[in-house]
Amino acid sequence: MKLNRKETAELIKAMEGDILITTHKNPDGDAVGSSLGWYNFLKKLGKSVKIVYRDRIPYFFDYLPNVNEVEVAEEIRREFDWVIITDVSEPKRTGFEEIPAKRSLVIDHHITAEPFTNYFIVEPDISSTCELSYYIMKLISEELIDRSVALPIYTGILTDTGSFNYSNTSLDTHLVAAELLKKGVEPYTVYTSIFERNRINRYKLLELVLKTLKFALDQRVAHITLFRKFLEETGAYPEESEGFINYPRSIDGVEVAVFFKEIEENFWKVSLRSKGKINVAEVAKNLGGGGHRMAAGYEKRGSIDKVKEELFKELELAFEKEYYESIS
Amino acid sequence: MKLNRKETAELIKAMEGDILITTHKNPDGDAVGSSLGWYNFLKKLGKSVKIVYRDRIPYFFDYLPNVNEVEVAEEIRREFDWVIITDVSEPKRTGFEEIPAKRSLVIDHHITAEPFTNYFIVEPDISSTCELSYYIMKLISEELIDRSVALPIYTGILTDTGSFNYSNTSLDTHLVAAELLKKGVEPYTVYTSIFERNRINRYKLLELVLKTLKFALDQRVAHITLFRKFLEETGAYPEESEGFINYPRSIDGVEVAVFFKEIEENFWKVSLRSKGKINVAEVAKNLGGGGHRMAAGYEKRGSIDKVKEELFKELELAFEKEYYESIS
Repeated sequence: MKLNRKETAELIKAMEGDILITTHKNPDGDAVGSSLGWYNFLKKLGKSVKIVYRDRIPYFFDYLPNVNEVEVAEEIRREFDWVIITDVSEPKRTGFEEIPAKRSLVIDHHITAEPFTNYFIVEPDISSTCELSYYIMKLISEELIDRSVALPIYTGILTDTGSFNYSNTSLDTHLVAAELLKKGVEPYTVYTSIFERNRINRYKLLELVLKTLKFALDQRVAHITLFRKFLEETGAYPEESEGFINYPRSIDGVEVAVFFKEIEENFWKVSLRSKGKINVAEVAKNLGGGGHRMAAGYEKRGSIDKVKEELFKELELAFEKEYYESIS
Repeated sequence: MKLNRKETAELIKAMEGDILITTHKNPDGDAVGSSLGWYNFLKKLGKSVKIVYRDRIPYFFDYLPNVNEVEVAEEIRREFDWVIITDVSEPKRTGFEEIPAKRSLVIDHHITAEPFTNYFIVEPDISSTCELSYYIMKLISEELIDRSVALPIYTGILTDTGSFNYSNTSLDTHLVAAELLKKGVEPYTVYTSIFERNRINRYKLLELVLKTLKFALDQRVAHITLFRKFLEETGAYPEESEGFINYPRSIDGVEVAVFFKEIEENFWKVSLRSKGKINVAEVAKNLGGGGHRMAAGYEKRGSIDKVKEELFKELELAFEKEYYESIS
């Protein structure tokens, strides 16, 4: 059942019994921020609540209050009365085969969302699940939003808006940020914690990945590739390539940026970024993935050449479609 | 004479005759934003106003309204009744030998500021000259702040706060941003205009500069070097190294980042960034430069080895001072 903000607030206020909170695999800032924000908020509301992820939290989120209370597990072993799933709409994308809960609620902002839960609120026009969560929390109790809630919420807004730069940033996003700063968030502390704790290995890796930078489809597409051997050569971790896709994306004239990451032999994780004209969520969906209009991805088995060929064909169709729409 | 915001507003409202607006050499976002913001605002206020820079405006600010009305000249050839100098306090740092104006006003936020003008308002606690200018403009006439004023003002706030991330970002900075978005600023348009129009040459240059990344003073200092030959090898422009200092700065444990740029043989431009503990404005001042606590710089003649040695000695003293202050 689709809910509006007020109905969601009422539903959460009325929740009884044991509540589980979880989010998607490979949790990013908005996933960690929204789930941990709700965890800290619901504890203050007097609820019995547990937070469990399938994957571990990236180290650069270690400044978040109660981040150590997040349990990482391969399966959910006991039954809950409720599960709240944030920042993702399909239960299987949580990474858990099964979530034993009597009732379920999704809070999300992804457009490919097709929730299979009992209740859901999905607002694709909003910057982040964190911003949406903040509005719902305010309807429940503004005074319970202290620094331990504000800090994760701010984190998700910051990372999903690319520091208030992407097109999902609204006037209201800045007003929320101002309110969160009033609650004790120090922007520079968050910034340095997330973005200024790199190892030099990251930049050795960047050096190698930049060498792979190439164009396709008349320079409208720029792509980079991370081969597994680069990780061995530099001693970098896979997650240290976070943000590298911004390099091809930021080149003048490029409409779509692509990052091919070799997960294992002949298995690729492909990330797509659009500058606005092309809907990469649609492209990713056609190839078995999903995401937002401007940021999407999918996984594919095969040689790098075949994976590239298949993607460029799909992108060519997307460019043609965009062209015919623009002249019609 | 030192003025507060209200006095500055009154002074500007009462200005008569021809007004010249200028800013510092190598204008950055806050310099261009504040001077052009005032230019567009004062025209709407019905003033007779000219805007002249010593150096040309970087191409990525070409989206700013009336940017083509900025005149670039080696000297100011006629006399003005007033000159308004934004984002810099010493007239000589405008790059002009002499500014023939009967009266002068400085609007700035730099702590090393020692204004030699008739009137000045310098608020070092504020994010940017643009944010300060916005408050003064509001005192003059809120309704004159249309998109042509809001866009340059937003630009300076964005670039000087590192996209609302640096410690100079306050609750009020976000409230101002919200008001500017209401006036028609589209964050993503500004972002892509400034940050996503790179040439591939920039990343070829980055590849070479990253190879020079080294540590000093027990890894508390990380530094990179741009030799002129790198520009020849990659076909990159000098200004395409903008932002490279964020790479050494963003390494875990690094307190001070340094970027040595070879301007001509044995002549170096040295940029300094602090993560908070060290006041690099003081370090730069001791070496003949200036700036903010967190971002400063200076120029020096000599071999790279001598320039490095001299700087590292100065930084060592700064670290010692910080250490004794922290334990006393």
